[in-house]
Amino acid sequence: MPRAYFEVKTGAILKKVLYDLKNRILGVKMKILAAQLNYTVGDFKGNTEKILSALQKARDEKIDLVTFSELAICGYPPEDLLLQEGFIDEMESALQKIINASADLFVIVGLARKNPSKIGKPFFNSAAVIDNGALLGFYDKWLLPTYDVFDEARYFESGNLVPLWECKGKKIGVLICEDIWGYEGGVDSSVYLKDPVEILSHEKVDFLINLSASPYHFKKLSLRTQICKRAVKTLNCPLIFCSQVGGNDQLVFDGQSFFVDANSDVLSIAKGFEEDLKIWDTNNMKKEIGEPKEPLEELFSALVLGVKDYFYKNNFKKACLGLSGGIDSAVVACIAVKALGNQNVEGIYMPSRYSSKSSEEDAKALADSLGISLKEISIEAPFESYLNLLSPYFGKLPVDHTEENVQARIRGAILMAFSNKFGSIVLSTSNKSEMALGFATLYGDLCGGLSVISDLTKKQVYEIAHFINLQKEIIPLSSLQKEPSAELRHGQKDSDSLPSYDLLDVIVESHVEFGKSAETIALENQLDLCFVKDVLHRIYQAEYKRRQSPLGIRVSQKSFKDGRRIPIVQKWT
Amino acid sequence: MPRAYFEVKTGAILKKVLYDLKNRILGVKMKILAAQLNYTVGDFKGNTEKILSALQKARDEKIDLVTFSELAICGYPPEDLLLQEGFIDEMESALQKIINASADLFVIVGLARKNPSKIGKPFFNSAAVIDNGALLGFYDKWLLPTYDVFDEARYFESGNLVPLWECKGKKIGVLICEDIWGYEGGVDSSVYLKDPVEILSHEKVDFLINLSASPYHFKKLSLRTQICKRAVKTLNCPLIFCSQVGGNDQLVFDGQSFFVDANSDVLSIAKGFEEDLKIWDTNNMKKEIGEPKEPLEELFSALVLGVKDYFYKNNFKKACLGLSGGIDSAVVACIAVKALGNQNVEGIYMPSRYSSKSSEEDAKALADSLGISLKEISIEAPFESYLNLLSPYFGKLPVDHTEENVQARIRGAILMAFSNKFGSIVLSTSNKSEMALGFATLYGDLCGGLSVISDLTKKQVYEIAHFINLQKEIIPLSSLQKEPSAELRHGQKDSDSLPSYDLLDVIVESHVEFGKSAETIALENQLDLCFVKDVLHRIYQAEYKRRQSPLGIRVSQKSFKDGRRIPIVQKWT
Repeated sequence: MPRAYFEVKTGAILKKVLYDLKNRILGVKMKILAAQLNYTVGDFKGNTEKILSALQKARDEKIDLVTFSELAICGYPPEDLLLQEGFIDEMESALQKIINASADLFVIVGLARKNPSKIGKPFFNSAAVIDNGALLGFYDKWLLPTYDVFDEARYFESGNLVPLWECKGKKIGVLICEDIWGYEGGVDSSVYLKDPVEILSHEKVDFLINLSASPYHFKKLSLRTQICKRAVKTLNCPLIFCSQVGGNDQLVFDGQSFFVDANSDVLSIAKGFEEDLKIWDTNNMKKEIGEPKEPLEELFSALVLGVKDYFYKNNFKKACLGLSGGIDSAVVACIAVKALGNQNVEGIYMPSRYSSKSSEEDAKALADSLGISLKEISIEAPFESYLNLLSPYFGKLPVDHTEENVQARIRGAILMAFSNKFGSIVLSTSNKSEMALGFATLYGDLCGGLSVISDLTKKQVYEIAHFINLQKEIIPLSSLQKEPSAELRHGQKDSDSLPSYDLLDVIVESHVEFGKSAETIALENQLDLCFVKDVLHRIYQAEYKRRQSPLGIRVSQKSFKDGRRIPIVQKWT
Repeated sequence: MPRAYFEVKTGAILKKVLYDLKNRILGVKMKILAAQLNYTVGDFKGNTEKILSALQKARDEKIDLVTFSELAICGYPPEDLLLQEGFIDEMESALQKIINASADLFVIVGLARKNPSKIGKPFFNSAAVIDNGALLGFYDKWLLPTYDVFDEARYFESGNLVPLWECKGKKIGVLICEDIWGYEGGVDSSVYLKDPVEILSHEKVDFLINLSASPYHFKKLSLRTQICKRAVKTLNCPLIFCSQVGGNDQLVFDGQSFFVDANSDVLSIAKGFEEDLKIWDTNNMKKEIGEPKEPLEELFSALVLGVKDYFYKNNFKKACLGLSGGIDSAVVACIAVKALGNQNVEGIYMPSRYSSKSSEEDAKALADSLGISLKEISIEAPFESYLNLLSPYFGKLPVDHTEENVQARIRGAILMAFSNKFGSIVLSTSNKSEMALGFATLYGDLCGGLSVISDLTKKQVYEIAHFINLQKEIIPLSSLQKEPSAELRHGQKDSDSLPSYDLLDVIVESHVEFGKSAETIALENQLDLCFVKDVLHRIYQAEYKRRQSPLGIRVSQKSFKDGRRIPIVQKWT
């Protein structure tokens, strides 16, 4: 039947010509809603309600396409909850509700789904594509990050198809987060064998949607936009990057979903560190990007959001912390006040025989400027009591770190007693430089539900303090200017036990964040190799302390604990 | 050149016929040494010395083939040490030393090696095959466990070839651990897409060598032999399963390398829980298997080895622990004495106003029967001191868990003071049932370097206690018979705060180890669903405590922490 064949072919060619013509005349037009929401892991009810309410808004605004972020329905990262009986079934029920609520809408939503083949890992990390109340199908994520804090190969099988979806006559490519990161070579130590962007490059794509759950780290946004621009250059179509926002355990998601046009120009960025139902009318896009935010402002916002969501999602309200008059606890108090309100933060100043007058003044000045309540509780009586108790056993042995730790542990016990009695959560105030060398007392200043600045080097703590003080002096200048001291013995200075923070921070950053060896660090910074080796050795020796330290908020490319899994028992260093 | 071709072919056929005939007449003869050694992670020097000394023994004993276990050169599991600059280079240097020392020997040794292709993950988990001082090549592990405590996909790319190696005219198949576990379907939630045993089944294999790093859990050996027998049935050849032994962080490797003949009969098992340079002369194999060890004896041995290696490999010598007169601390003391010697274990009995006379008697009786030193240090003075300090703030609020926790934290601080002053390591004594519900005080009884029985349910603690008492009453009967109590208030019983341990243990095991839902557990055990749900809820709520608890020794299929990664912030339960 050559004639019929010819007819079909002519029809198809005609359709294609008209389609291209329409696109050329009208532009690639679409009204898109990127739902940047703050999900709680495992909160199917709450997450689904948020999604449904976004769908309602989409309907009101006559949106063509609504997209949500990666694993939106269950929140990211669900970790081993995924493996618990019943979890995936609740996900399916939630998806059904979303499908039912999608009349007149084209919806893309992230979720985990069962791997139907029964071979490989039990789940896919998927995007459900829904058109007018009907499930069109799923896209299953290809590239599964399994490095740093990510464990996706633990749960997910890798997808094998990159379908194009049709929405209002447009060809929509859907990828999930890492899928777009493999394109430019490696991420961390992963160089992927396959590349969904490359597959898509053989097709004509009108829009690329990336459902993301890309956690914040210092200066991450520019990295993300750069990666996306490369994909856009290849596919020659606009890209919508849809993020989640909020804190989940150590991870903070900064939101900042964005729109890149086909010329690789980032035209619009959604709000940072809060929810945003961002609408982009692709036929009417103007560049609406202001000055990029100060990296320190972003860092501060990330820490605030990390604290806020740890409390909010755990149904906690009040925080307490030890105020020493030093800079670390001052910065933590400022972050906590911003996150929880000054009425919900309580400081406790716990002096000993070794505390200086200026510490008391600085703690009080800080509490005053923040408007938080401050208790002063001397640790002398229990300290004396411990010393008496122990003296028959310790005899004439010299005073050492034992007695210092006793003081820190008394402070920890007092904070925990307030926490237990009044339901407030203790905030731990150790920074990354101290955590690196174990310059902190387990069960002492390492007590707490959340370690707020455990991923900031001492240098960053100072920088954040200066940022906090930009408008007015909230943190007393004296806290900023005095030499750091734990005040656990007369005349103690941090520099008695630690290298100068300048050097320490360089070594910690070079080794922990960038994985450089002692030799490289010594060479690059003109430092003595033995000195650098000794610092690295101390970092590894302190691993046991970090294992028992509270959850910390990750704000660097490589934080301790989950992102950096080092054996306690090892003889490499 | 048809004639030449014919000649070659005839030669090959002739060779094959003679080879088969020889095998049929002489049997598949080989003298094999399975070097079951105790490696320390990252200890290239020490591990290499052990390997070289085994090679010397092999030479002395005229061994045909020596095999070592998985990742022998660096120890298993190296975790993120693998990713540190320089680590893999030291592995290569160590391999070169081993190759150099392999004259006249056929050696198979486990190590990580760089992935030469630069695509995929940076390393292979490999077996180097060495013949007479020359490296023949590598076998790269196919199946990479990425579940439970295993993170192999974080580091390794999967291999794609299963070469057969020739040693003394025999065809040797080499697989690495998990490679043999995929054959029978899934392991945990992993069902592998490919199967190296299946590939080997198309060839004539004379011996299959499995280099393993399969950690102990309760009743693991029979599972291992069962898996191996299936492979043997398929390949129709003897199998040598070569294990490592020793404790590395939370994992304990039990050794017990074994030999399965071509009839799937396990003929010989190397020593459990210690090193063994086990020689099997395949031409002269007799069944030399005694009665299988009591599972409880194995469990006890595993805990002892876990403690021993934590101390030995960290260069620690002395342990101290709080002896309460209860069963948990008694069992931990017995394990510690077996591991470290009674001269290296110190008990501290720390009574309060709530302690019973019998607790003191039981603590003393235990210390006597173990021959360990016992200090008695009342916590009354610091307790009083804390109460005075806090009373202005607590006012007339009722006494509650706050005051209980203060006591536990004083005990923790005293233990830590002894640890700091005398360099002993505190052993934590919480069991899995308590850890499940968070029935333990953070920074109190959860203090310590090592949590010895944190993976034993209360039921197992009693069973181990009875096992310890089999020959003579070491643990006082009174500790075994009295109702468990934390003695933190007058007349307190564990059953005031916890379900009966019988019920609790069933729920913990069913949910944590076997992943069963509340509904399934209620149904299977005829329990009230609300009650089961409440217990599960409490398990999830206590996640934050477990995150800050010390390293524990894993002895079950599913221990808390690394093997079970649950978010702290989540709303599923």
